[in-house]
Amino acid sequence: MLTLYYARGTCALASHIALEYAGAQYRTVRLDFTKEEQRAPGYLKVNPKGRVPALVTDRGVITETPAILQFIAQSHPQSPLGDVADPFELARANAFNSYLCATVHVNHAHGRRAYRWADGDEAIAAMKKKVPETMGGSFELIEREMFTGPWVLGDRFSTCDPYLFTIAGWLKGDGVDIERFPKVAGHYRRMAAEPAVARVLAMQAEG
Amino acid sequence: MLTLYYARGTCALASHIALEYAGAQYRTVRLDFTKEEQRAPGYLKVNPKGRVPALVTDRGVITETPAILQFIAQSHPQSPLGDVADPFELARANAFNSYLCATVHVNHAHGRRAYRWADGDEAIAAMKKKVPETMGGSFELIEREMFTGPWVLGDRFSTCDPYLFTIAGWLKGDGVDIERFPKVAGHYRRMAAEPAVARVLAMQAEG
Repeated sequence: MLTLYYARGTCALASHIALEYAGAQYRTVRLDFTKEEQRAPGYLKVNPKGRVPALVTDRGVITETPAILQFIAQSHPQSPLGDVADPFELARANAFNSYLCATVHVNHAHGRRAYRWADGDEAIAAMKKKVPETMGGSFELIEREMFTGPWVLGDRFSTCDPYLFTIAGWLKGDGVDIERFPKVAGHYRRMAAEPAVARVLAMQAEG
Repeated sequence: MLTLYYARGTCALASHIALEYAGAQYRTVRLDFTKEEQRAPGYLKVNPKGRVPALVTDRGVITETPAILQFIAQSHPQSPLGDVADPFELARANAFNSYLCATVHVNHAHGRRAYRWADGDEAIAAMKKKVPETMGGSFELIEREMFTGPWVLGDRFSTCDPYLFTIAGWLKGDGVDIERFPKVAGHYRRMAAEPAVARVLAMQAEG
């Protein structure tokens, strides 16, 4: 049995969707960021970084979205996420997910959690101000250079699809109109209509 | 034949060291960041992100350090980097590399390339000022929670070792004394004494 720790509105959504696609046996634990539950001593024993997602397995805890996504895919090889054996195809997925994790998510975080990187209201306001530009620039690159279609990597569904869906869902709040990127916007709508995605969104909205 | 595009002083060092450990057939192309060669039209055809590293293979280009490292390991399964088949062990490596890529490297970049995330001299100065704190905090976490020893993941050498060596090498320039972290400092010295690492450092220093 796997246990996913998540919070609403975070990148943990990608791992949650992947678990659902994989048909995994899992349960979820929701943390309330407005109550700083991610910094509670009990959770810091699960993930000393005080972040989500964290996936508890019977062998230990896995953190970081790209690592969790690949683990879910590889440990459920018969699922639509597949277990890609070819090193080059796996590298394509990893390169895309690394870009989302280390560049796009980081751009977004400057709007909400700029205090991580500077002190002072002016600096924090300056970082927040630039988010539409950096997020827009990242999605221009995804649209023009990285997105193959109909799925991120082409005909094959992969871990990149729930991850892109998750981060594309932040564009509106970041002041960027997703319709500037027709391929990404079409992908977003297609993902939102997938039964596995609808189930996860309903679970996260409950209670 | 593989071709690695790199620049001195960048995270591309990790991929370069991994190629040497793997005994890969490769050549290197050095870009001069002081001449903005990473933004030249010719290079943007290789990597539209205008960053290094980029690894050109006979099937296409791979970008992003975690993706390149895993590709090198998996396509050279007999090398000391190994080709880890167990999904959980691979997830341990991926989680560590993701943390370096998306948190530690990003902290460092706020000292050199803060203009990515805000405009204005004051904001940029405020970001630069916080780098010793964020880099110090990240390495405290690595030292206390992530580093197993003698290598990053334990007895087995992995892709995490050249990557940690590369980023630990930035601490001094970021105003952080590596000796605060005895396990990381010991690992850094052990890596620096490895023949493959010495060969790469000599190659990058040439000419």
